[in-house]
Amino acid sequence: MKKMPRFAVVLSGSGRADGSEIHESVSALLAIDRAGCTYQCFAPNVEQAAVINNMTSEKMDEKRNVLVESARIARGEIKDLREFNAKDFECVIFPGGLGAVTNWCDFAKNGVACTVESSVSRVLNEAYDNGLVIGAMCIAPVIVAKALGRHGITVTIGNDKTVAGKIEQTGAKHQNTKVSDACVDEENRIVTTPAYMLATSVKEVFAGAEAMVKEMLRLAQ
Amino acid sequence: MKKMPRFAVVLSGSGRADGSEIHESVSALLAIDRAGCTYQCFAPNVEQAAVINNMTSEKMDEKRNVLVESARIARGEIKDLREFNAKDFECVIFPGGLGAVTNWCDFAKNGVACTVESSVSRVLNEAYDNGLVIGAMCIAPVIVAKALGRHGITVTIGNDKTVAGKIEQTGAKHQNTKVSDACVDEENRIVTTPAYMLATSVKEVFAGAEAMVKEMLRLAQ
Repeated sequence: MKKMPRFAVVLSGSGRADGSEIHESVSALLAIDRAGCTYQCFAPNVEQAAVINNMTSEKMDEKRNVLVESARIARGEIKDLREFNAKDFECVIFPGGLGAVTNWCDFAKNGVACTVESSVSRVLNEAYDNGLVIGAMCIAPVIVAKALGRHGITVTIGNDKTVAGKIEQTGAKHQNTKVSDACVDEENRIVTTPAYMLATSVKEVFAGAEAMVKEMLRLAQ
Repeated sequence: MKKMPRFAVVLSGSGRADGSEIHESVSALLAIDRAGCTYQCFAPNVEQAAVINNMTSEKMDEKRNVLVESARIARGEIKDLREFNAKDFECVIFPGGLGAVTNWCDFAKNGVACTVESSVSRVLNEAYDNGLVIGAMCIAPVIVAKALGRHGITVTIGNDKTVAGKIEQTGAKHQNTKVSDACVDEENRIVTTPAYMLATSVKEVFAGAEAMVKEMLRLAQ
């Protein structure tokens, strides 16, 4: 029996306003599972940049840890991102949500001049250098571009011209893509999908996740 | 064109250890959306019984609000459960997670002698009295049994004998059900599915959610 690719899924908290977008994360896990593959969740063991009330979008006077909150999506089965070893996986997925641009890096504040959190930066570079297939959803492709843009990679965040322009400042190329499709960079083994950058419902997000996982499997096998 | 049933989805927080189980909640939303129906999320506006670290299962010295945390799953589109009006919906779903037996009621502590939170109790009774189809997943059927057991309803929580015994103390009947199937009480218009009481992966939970929503639609139309 052919060995199925193993997926790592990197989370940035739990909830669209200050962590990983929950529908996108679960859609990725469900798409992996339905494809007959296994996954291991990871998150950086750092404090959240902020805690945001996801109903009012107001900042709350609290502190929360990205790894601990990400465990809510992972049902407790999660590891510190520092434990990630590229040899254990063929694929790695980065779901979206504002945590991608506030907890993994400070892109939301500083744009392409942002700094990427060290464990996230290491994983992106090691994944690329070891030939893993990298998947990213929604706004998460900006951090892939920040870390790997120097390789001339191609990604999508849908069709937002402002964000696309910032992505191209990193050396990466942006390709407009429909909501439930995947943008595939064959050479650099990177697959991205717009998710809630364009989606108006969870079924569109799931369709995009399935398209992304399908292309990742094709590249990984 | 025939009008599609409208779903309410009631949440108990965000995360299996102290709120709504996230995979179950998103599976329910995705199954509703894929069936061509709309949903509105609700949660009681009360303090969580506890805040649990979902990685270690240890209690954290924090306070969180059930409605505010549930908004993470609902992407902010959520209402106080006190605003629920049975006339606006044909179906209402209660996903599982420990929040169902700690925030909606204190079943986890006091078993069938538990008290049901007032807004949850009202919604269950009004939904039943108005002929809405009630869906519940995982451990959530115990609160349906607590509120409506006097009507002799039939539900499932999978095949756990201890919990099934407690359910039968309420006057409800328990029916053993396979992980991705739905237990249907035609007369009382109640559909339940075991989800993570039995599931070993998210695809099994989603299959159960799809089976539940399909049966709910059949009863509602």
